[in-house]
Amino acid sequence: MAMTGVLRPGHTQLRVLDLEESVNFYKNVMGLVETGRDKSGRVYFKCHDERDHNSLVLREADRAGMDHYAFKVLNRETLQRLDSDLRAYGIHTERIPAGEMLETGERIQFEAPTGHIFELYADKTEVGDGLGYLNPDVIIEDRKGISPLRLDHWQIHGGDLDGSRDLFVNVLGFSVVERIVAKDGKTDLAVWLSCSIKAHDIAFVRDERDNTLHHAAYLLESWDHVLRTADLMSKKRVSIDIGPLRHGITRGTTIYAFDPSGNRFETFCGGYNFYPDMKPYVWTEEEMGAAVFYHTRTLNERFLTVVT
Amino acid sequence: MAMTGVLRPGHTQLRVLDLEESVNFYKNVMGLVETGRDKSGRVYFKCHDERDHNSLVLREADRAGMDHYAFKVLNRETLQRLDSDLRAYGIHTERIPAGEMLETGERIQFEAPTGHIFELYADKTEVGDGLGYLNPDVIIEDRKGISPLRLDHWQIHGGDLDGSRDLFVNVLGFSVVERIVAKDGKTDLAVWLSCSIKAHDIAFVRDERDNTLHHAAYLLESWDHVLRTADLMSKKRVSIDIGPLRHGITRGTTIYAFDPSGNRFETFCGGYNFYPDMKPYVWTEEEMGAAVFYHTRTLNERFLTVVT
Amino acid sequence: MAMTGVLRPGHTQLRVLDLEESVNFYKNVMGLVETGRDKSGRVYFKCHDERDHNSLVLREADRAGMDHYAFKVLNRETLQRLDSDLRAYGIHTERIPAGEMLETGERIQFEAPTGHIFELYADKTEVGDGLGYLNPDVIIEDRKGISPLRLDHWQIHGGDLDGSRDLFVNVLGFSVVERIVAKDGKTDLAVWLSCSIKAHDIAFVRDERDNTLHHAAYLLESWDHVLRTADLMSKKRVSIDIGPLRHGITRGTTIYAFDPSGNRFETFCGGYNFYPDMKPYVWTEEEMGAAVFYHTRTLNERFLTVVT
Amino acid sequence: MAMTGVLRPGHTQLRVLDLEESVNFYKNVMGLVETGRDKSGRVYFKCHDERDHNSLVLREADRAGMDHYAFKVLNRETLQRLDSDLRAYGIHTERIPAGEMLETGERIQFEAPTGHIFELYADKTEVGDGLGYLNPDVIIEDRKGISPLRLDHWQIHGGDLDGSRDLFVNVLGFSVVERIVAKDGKTDLAVWLSCSIKAHDIAFVRDERDNTLHHAAYLLESWDHVLRTADLMSKKRVSIDIGPLRHGITRGTTIYAFDPSGNRFETFCGGYNFYPDMKPYVWTEEEMGAAVFYHTRTLNERFLTVVT
Repeated sequence: MAMTGVLRPGHTQLRVLDLEESVNFYKNVMGLVETGRDKSGRVYFKCHDERDHNSLVLREADRAGMDHYAFKVLNRETLQRLDSDLRAYGIHTERIPAGEMLETGERIQFEAPTGHIFELYADKTEVGDGLGYLNPDVIIEDRKGISPLRLDHWQIHGGDLDGSRDLFVNVLGFSVVERIVAKDGKTDLAVWLSCSIKAHDIAFVRDERDNTLHHAAYLLESWDHVLRTADLMSKKRVSIDIGPLRHGITRGTTIYAFDPSGNRFETFCGGYNFYPDMKPYVWTEEEMGAAVFYHTRTLNERFLTVVT
Repeated sequence: MAMTGVLRPGHTQLRVLDLEESVNFYKNVMGLVETGRDKSGRVYFKCHDERDHNSLVLREADRAGMDHYAFKVLNRETLQRLDSDLRAYGIHTERIPAGEMLETGERIQFEAPTGHIFELYADKTEVGDGLGYLNPDVIIEDRKGISPLRLDHWQIHGGDLDGSRDLFVNVLGFSVVERIVAKDGKTDLAVWLSCSIKAHDIAFVRDERDNTLHHAAYLLESWDHVLRTADLMSKKRVSIDIGPLRHGITRGTTIYAFDPSGNRFETFCGGYNFYPDMKPYVWTEEEMGAAVFYHTRTLNERFLTVVT
Repeated sequence: MAMTGVLRPGHTQLRVLDLEESVNFYKNVMGLVETGRDKSGRVYFKCHDERDHNSLVLREADRAGMDHYAFKVLNRETLQRLDSDLRAYGIHTERIPAGEMLETGERIQFEAPTGHIFELYADKTEVGDGLGYLNPDVIIEDRKGISPLRLDHWQIHGGDLDGSRDLFVNVLGFSVVERIVAKDGKTDLAVWLSCSIKAHDIAFVRDERDNTLHHAAYLLESWDHVLRTADLMSKKRVSIDIGPLRHGITRGTTIYAFDPSGNRFETFCGGYNFYPDMKPYVWTEEEMGAAVFYHTRTLNERFLTVVT
Repeated sequence: MAMTGVLRPGHTQLRVLDLEESVNFYKNVMGLVETGRDKSGRVYFKCHDERDHNSLVLREADRAGMDHYAFKVLNRETLQRLDSDLRAYGIHTERIPAGEMLETGERIQFEAPTGHIFELYADKTEVGDGLGYLNPDVIIEDRKGISPLRLDHWQIHGGDLDGSRDLFVNVLGFSVVERIVAKDGKTDLAVWLSCSIKAHDIAFVRDERDNTLHHAAYLLESWDHVLRTADLMSKKRVSIDIGPLRHGITRGTTIYAFDPSGNRFETFCGGYNFYPDMKPYVWTEEEMGAAVFYHTRTLNERFLTVVT
């Protein structure tokens, strides 16, 4: 296999303040497909173009934020190997048995230096994209709401960015795609990492608030889809943080907004392909504005300060 | 590394009937960047968003077609390993020394069962995309002609499709993404293969004409870019085979056209991401039309018969 | 008023072979809004972004084609004036009383030299676009099928093109926007006429088959909408004549397809603005291909021969 | 003629603080075509898709802003008639002889109640769009900078909005397309007016600062062009006020930015067609944010306060 190891962001468990309000939001505004509810009351969703059973799990709680971030790996052998590699690196791992989440196999769970709980897993029931595997159509006709293609990436914040970056690069096989470097010329303020050829699968930002979520990103298919998303957000009174605009980093186009619990999410489109033989782009602290919001070239206060 | 082994289509050497006419075409109509000429008279080009020195080499000859198809691999260790793996599989390989092509390291060359000459290499001088690596802009302002982002994939024809498919899957680590299956329900008429998460890096079509090229594909950034490309092709009197339209296979959008020597090329956009845990889509022979040209649902004669 | 006289194509009465099959097509595939049925069994539709009660009336008949083509005029005074002007020009007119069509005022009907029945009317009940007139949203959320914005124009064929052109220019106030001129350098083979600043509101093509319809065109909002339309047409097995592509004439983008009765329709997007102080573009007969299908630069046989 | 009277915004004379800096901006960043300089030092430009000699005249001055706003009318008879109508309405008019501006015929000049100087003219030398009138291509290949299609509309501020609105509606034949109404339910805070079927040709905003310019708008061809414009503005360090986003009013998409003298301009795309038989949309003062910036639903301070 040329594409091996960690494949992609697979699922997350998101804390929401009011479950049914959030189910309504993710189903009718975000346009995800509800795929199940478990005995503990968690509600499962997938994007219409994802083939596995779920990529988002909502859990009602008294504060917002993300319980854990899970990557799908190539197969069970890879799961075992990465578990060993993590332990050898000095990371404590735990095994969550198959079935704890609906239609999901055994998960390896560990805490990264930035305080976030990550998971790896190899198995999740394939339910398909609704088009079938024989002579499929290219479009799903009746899509509701924003209707992103798939979960794309996360941006998360914590203090020991160096620790999490090194863990992802040296143990999990991610590549550094872009970096924002502090005025001292060496400290990473933020790093964008890819485990595939996407412009990023995860981004870490240096922030004293450990284990915090800046946003989970969902993929849109075109700049036109970005516009329709912004139109729909306004119509549905979704609180937009900023956008539509383009990122300097990844060159992707974007809108940032908030779910009813205050969790920021991104509807993202594009981004160049990055291969591990390429050098990362580097941004200076002075140009951080253009790095993130290429058009405005300045960051807004809310974008810098609100995390969950 | 999660992205390992064979990375991507790296370069091809294309035979053209009139060198200067073709240089003019690839520079001013296709909008590639000329990066050098060597002592044997070959002319080198890259796409504006590629960072390595070259992805297209033109060689004047008395018949059109492709001399060889080269994939870049992760590093020299990978190159050695794949050379061994190929030999172990029973494929004869030869080493082309570094420097035979401008700014390109040692290449491993071998003939696939369909008669095509393939190459693997690990080193090509990085010349960048013109934006620099520090605080880059997101656009290159003065782009000429079609100006694709990069070389994307090839579709090539030959008799022993099964042999080439198995070689690419079992030795080179490609995944089968989509297939067209004959009425017998088992014979692959065509297969689309990926070595990354692109919807395809190469496609093989069963055809008694061994070692033939159907098309080399260049990547466009948007459906709007597809339209501007068609407009420009008409203005420049490029011979369009078909398009703009969408593929059933890969869901990409496309135009097919011919260079002045009669070599077909594709300007391609989009395509979903495929991961090796996914099942391939299968198309029946009866739906081959929709598979290739989703809108018209029929193939044109020229598309089926003209190869170089 | 700066915009006076004849305003725009208002409604047509289309003959279909099977009424319910056609109602299903225009409602669920074309995505028009059914607004009523009258005692004679005719079914009325409007496009979602039109504000008047109807723009399409289906009438079951044993052959396809268009009964009549109606333009809305500014007001009743204009209607009276144009009736007088037509009579003064030697055209016989008839008055169809208000109410003969649902929610439609008195119509002036006359036959043009090409044999087509035209109508003028000033009154049709305003039912709105569904967004309301107070603090409207910019999008209608639940649109089905192709969902064009509005009826845009017609292309119709007949022998006495010169007669109909002169009638529309000299009596009804249309401007000639573009022309295709025969090899003799003076005979119009086709003319595109505008009564507003649209690139065309009607086109006449010289054709010995009097009173025939080439196509009725519906407006799409973007090139992205053209792509989604082609995708949907394929999924719904709509018979596509040609497209997506761009016209040389008007610069609009387009798909041509057929309704279940064999009536050709166009889904059209764009077109430059033309003002009456501008000179028409002229196309020679030799470049008729590029004039109509700018990308392919050739006309297909079906496009040239099939009318209803 | 169905399209009569006042045709469209034709030209403006803009005051700039540094002529050569501004010429460089409008030529190389905005991408207009310089068409001439006159003896008084004024520099003339047109957009690439305009056919008349000029639509922008730069005049060096010690403060920014617009000298006058000119509409082209159908012909000289219309010019005479409108001059009489203006005088009959109590407006003082003056005649500027042909030739005072390059390649421009006699102009009728008058001051509107909001303090702005308007002009009407019937003649301006037709120089074409560069494509010719015989078998034209659909694209101009070598476009520089933003390269809008044409001048589209103006938004201007002054105290006696009611006076200017009535003048434009009752004398010049404009239609009210959209309005923002104050909390008293009757006072227009802003009105959007059309003299054609464009969603607007001019907008007046109630503002005690008479004879001020909010922005001059240039037309872009697509939402994709809006994105490329924002990218280019960032690259060229153009000061962006806000955008890309969509308007509630007109439904157009937009970016607002400033020229080097601080004159705001808009790059605008889309907008529905409005006919004089339609009712205007009405926005309440409370929803003014959504009316102008549909996505953010709030106005920024700079947008509200900066005029020249």
